[in-house]
Amino acid sequence: MLAAEPAKPVKKEPAPKRGRPAKPAAEKAPAKRGRPAAKPASGTAKTAAGNGKKSRAARKTPVRIIPLGGLHEVGKNITVYECGQDAFLVDCGMGFPDADMLGVDLVIPDFTYLEKNADKIRGIVITHGHEDHIGSIPYLLRKINVPIYGTKLAIGLIEGKLKEHGLLGKADLRVITPKQTVKMGCMSVEFIRVNHSIPDSVGVAIHTPAGVIVYTGDFKVDFSPIEGDIIDLARFAELGSKGVLCLLSDSTNAERPGSTMSESKVGQSFNTLFNRAEGKRIIVATFSSNIHRIQQIADNAMKYGRKVAVSGRSMINVVGKAMELGYLKVPDGLFIDIDAINRYPADKIVLITTGSQGEPLSALSRMASSDHRKVSVTPNDFIIISATPIPGNEKHVTRVVNDLLKLGAEVIYEKMYEVHVSGHACQDELKLILSLTKPKFFIPVHGEYKHLVAHAHLAQSVGIPPSNILIGDIGQVIQVDNVEMKVIGNVEAGGVFVDGLGVGDVGSIVIRDRKRLAQDGLIIIVATIEKETGACMAGPDIVSRGFVYVRESEELMEEARLLVKKALNQCLDSGIRDWTTMKNSIKDALSSFIYRKTKRSPMILPIMMEI
Amino acid sequence: MLAAEPAKPVKKEPAPKRGRPAKPAAEKAPAKRGRPAAKPASGTAKTAAGNGKKSRAARKTPVRIIPLGGLHEVGKNITVYECGQDAFLVDCGMGFPDADMLGVDLVIPDFTYLEKNADKIRGIVITHGHEDHIGSIPYLLRKINVPIYGTKLAIGLIEGKLKEHGLLGKADLRVITPKQTVKMGCMSVEFIRVNHSIPDSVGVAIHTPAGVIVYTGDFKVDFSPIEGDIIDLARFAELGSKGVLCLLSDSTNAERPGSTMSESKVGQSFNTLFNRAEGKRIIVATFSSNIHRIQQIADNAMKYGRKVAVSGRSMINVVGKAMELGYLKVPDGLFIDIDAINRYPADKIVLITTGSQGEPLSALSRMASSDHRKVSVTPNDFIIISATPIPGNEKHVTRVVNDLLKLGAEVIYEKMYEVHVSGHACQDELKLILSLTKPKFFIPVHGEYKHLVAHAHLAQSVGIPPSNILIGDIGQVIQVDNVEMKVIGNVEAGGVFVDGLGVGDVGSIVIRDRKRLAQDGLIIIVATIEKETGACMAGPDIVSRGFVYVRESEELMEEARLLVKKALNQCLDSGIRDWTTMKNSIKDALSSFIYRKTKRSPMILPIMMEI
Repeated sequence: MLAAEPAKPVKKEPAPKRGRPAKPAAEKAPAKRGRPAAKPASGTAKTAAGNGKKSRAARKTPVRIIPLGGLHEVGKNITVYECGQDAFLVDCGMGFPDADMLGVDLVIPDFTYLEKNADKIRGIVITHGHEDHIGSIPYLLRKINVPIYGTKLAIGLIEGKLKEHGLLGKADLRVITPKQTVKMGCMSVEFIRVNHSIPDSVGVAIHTPAGVIVYTGDFKVDFSPIEGDIIDLARFAELGSKGVLCLLSDSTNAERPGSTMSESKVGQSFNTLFNRAEGKRIIVATFSSNIHRIQQIADNAMKYGRKVAVSGRSMINVVGKAMELGYLKVPDGLFIDIDAINRYPADKIVLITTGSQGEPLSALSRMASSDHRKVSVTPNDFIIISATPIPGNEKHVTRVVNDLLKLGAEVIYEKMYEVHVSGHACQDELKLILSLTKPKFFIPVHGEYKHLVAHAHLAQSVGIPPSNILIGDIGQVIQVDNVEMKVIGNVEAGGVFVDGLGVGDVGSIVIRDRKRLAQDGLIIIVATIEKETGACMAGPDIVSRGFVYVRESEELMEEARLLVKKALNQCLDSGIRDWTTMKNSIKDALSSFIYRKTKRSPMILPIMMEI
Repeated sequence: MLAAEPAKPVKKEPAPKRGRPAKPAAEKAPAKRGRPAAKPASGTAKTAAGNGKKSRAARKTPVRIIPLGGLHEVGKNITVYECGQDAFLVDCGMGFPDADMLGVDLVIPDFTYLEKNADKIRGIVITHGHEDHIGSIPYLLRKINVPIYGTKLAIGLIEGKLKEHGLLGKADLRVITPKQTVKMGCMSVEFIRVNHSIPDSVGVAIHTPAGVIVYTGDFKVDFSPIEGDIIDLARFAELGSKGVLCLLSDSTNAERPGSTMSESKVGQSFNTLFNRAEGKRIIVATFSSNIHRIQQIADNAMKYGRKVAVSGRSMINVVGKAMELGYLKVPDGLFIDIDAINRYPADKIVLITTGSQGEPLSALSRMASSDHRKVSVTPNDFIIISATPIPGNEKHVTRVVNDLLKLGAEVIYEKMYEVHVSGHACQDELKLILSLTKPKFFIPVHGEYKHLVAHAHLAQSVGIPPSNILIGDIGQVIQVDNVEMKVIGNVEAGGVFVDGLGVGDVGSIVIRDRKRLAQDGLIIIVATIEKETGACMAGPDIVSRGFVYVRESEELMEEARLLVKKALNQCLDSGIRDWTTMKNSIKDALSSFIYRKTKRSPMILPIMMEI
């Protein structure tokens, strides 16, 4: 299916169009994250022509693709494209912390490589306005200020974000439209309409001296989108006919057979359910960024003579922005303030709220725990959770559903009706894009390793040879030219934790301590020692937190205190004044005692004061 | 469908057969867990005859059903049945901690009510050998020692468990078989064969002076079980024809339409996959208690000329017990020791292992992280995860799958093939049991609130009036007689945390502290104060753990120290010697400073020493 390029006589590499000297390789910083060579695809992918025998093709100026996030993970999408002395970014997203990243609010990419190469970076291209594609922009902007290109909605949402961070005046935001092309030094970026769960999403075709690189962005194929155009399949096909060097495509749903249902399907379900909810108030929880979903809720509200109110900070923000920019098309007076809902009969109201993932502080969670200042849930509520729990959120959602049911409400959740569709392409759509673009090389992106592997298998099934497929990792410098694709080095990459106002001040040691404290709590020992004599003037006292109920374990704690006292005295008696030694012998004695008695390992923290 | 009982003339309540005086109500201890009245079913369920007008039916001696676990939760199944002065337990399971029960190993029921009524308890009836039905037996046995009745396998597994706890000699274990009946004072318990994901599972029919109460246990309807009989539908039907007073039935899959597939379906998938795995080693991860699954793996291993080895502590234990008791039927020499696997070619081996839920310390997780002493995973491994992730475990399983794929293995997981079926009945099976037993009253059991509600809806759909369905809660005393079912009181019930050797010494305060420590860490302030003068002799020193990288936040910590010093001096200057006041002013000053600077709220722990 994919014929190898015909061999051509070797000639000198032409300089890129803008005339900058081509530098062969990216900076080779030490790799932060060592991973075994990706299988089943090899680290070095060559065409048949370049494989084994010496290549005779004219080598073009190579492009370097450096993913700094979005591989082996869901979220934190950010990729650098470099050619010669020019570079630009596609997306700049954030990640959500795993359950074991205790206390971490969000995870942003490691920007070290970008800071070192700031002078090369011509801009940032944004494919759509989801957090995992725009969420790290404020953090990067504080270090590097380059133009940011995105569609009107994405730029609108970025503006809101920058405003919160007090950075709005600083940024150079540029609105683009699909089919438009933007120059990035020797490369240029063409925007291509795609469908996704937020309006105005695009993929990109990156025109480089080495050839055309296509990145789908997050996408699905929706032949009946709620608003806007169908994904521009014709342009993907046209690029494919002319020759696509490399395709990077969204792997999120690569494990799912078939095609993703159209968003319009959800509207039909809403119609059925709104009909069934007659006489009751309707509450719908969904993602605030899914403006097409909100449009369909509004359309059905209108049909059934109901007013619409919104609850939840992000819902209020996004709905406001979407109305202002014309993405949400509703007649005047349909939307009312949440404070006004009680002026209407319950069956004349639809309330749209955040909290579809059961997030503990969200509006829906607060309603469920009777803790929402403005909305009390009763048996007269008909509640639709228009979302599927993201892996890891199942228990949160179940808790909210249980609590809402206990308040007597009728609740539609999970797979009970088709009240949610994914924003990502399933296997048939992925194969469609692969078949239309007919890339020489393929890099599956966006997803856990298992998703990338599944996508690689799909690519093989449509005829891309395994040697031309690369399962990459973040920090890898993937060099592509017309002959081969290979990993030529690594740059610093990883996740930087944001906790409150702190960026990067919580790292692996802090997290390790938090885990230990979470598991078994801690025991603190304090003693005041006289410098001269070594006499213990006060203490040792013992204080614990998160370990045991102190009142019920007085005996244990007193025994522990005496043990510490003994260990301390032994040190002092044998003339030990070195605090590290003293602390260690106290720690050793106490931790083995505690483990023997309780089979637990609390953190033990001896603090000595000297007077 | 369910006709009301014909009204009968009122006559004096007959004494129960054994002649003990009937005591009207259970002890009314204060309820530990206040929940709003369950909806849609009401707290008091009456028949049509008893509803509204004065009942004329002859009231029989009532039975009291007291669930101490298993409602509004998955796991920890345990229910007391009481009549007059007789009581017995059905099951005595444990629960797994939620993600927010930090450091807790397992959860057992609150036994307070049982301890207070120990003299009434005639025995414990076990429906099958899963942990959520037997796991708390060792903890209860230390308090109350009564005969334990169960099928051969359940008793075998209980023996193993008691041995680990050093309690084996103490227990009175009695093997029963289906169709057998055991006396429990004025009540008797009849065992009825059911199908489930562990062999030798039973439901029970409890014959009481008030009528027959049927409890299904965990069950499914499997018309082609791997071994043993099909669920005894005839007996359920016979009981139904004679009249069932109350049905308690398994709600785990009440949200799922249709019927659960037969276990034999999995064998067919194994056959296909074993065929496909030609030339490779096969590793299958599954639940150790699913002996029918293991039988099918062994059968296929035999067919394909492979030897079988097992890995993982619980797998080794259960397989050994199942062979000893004749539940696992395999020819001599088929099973080999794991140490012997390398003496055979890889394609002559099937390894059965624990870890199908991605449990971090399980054998499969250790193989995935190249940390297993005896098994190294390579591209020559074909790995089947024969299980579905239990809600909350999805991320763990994904991690294991990713790591196995990275080692180059082929991995079959989740819904890729039909390599797992549930052990619980889906909606059609639940309706079948409801239709066969035709109970007057119905109590859905086993499940989150949403499952109980879904099951209640199913019961309504087959004709049970909503007023005869009760969604109960743990600790409720549900009284049933021939006329009505109602909640007459509450007893102490809840979860007791087991952490290491400690039972109940970790409670809500300890967990709250662990959560806070996990979220933002802690800051400790120590100072030594001279009693007489109030002078600060040493300190204040500041120590933190799990808060920030100290080295990168030296300035912040020094600023904090000076702030504390100032607050302390202000106290001393204004003559304050009360330590609580001093500690509070230090805490207040520091916590607002820290929050302003970092938007975090670490635990702040001032420790004052007096000399």
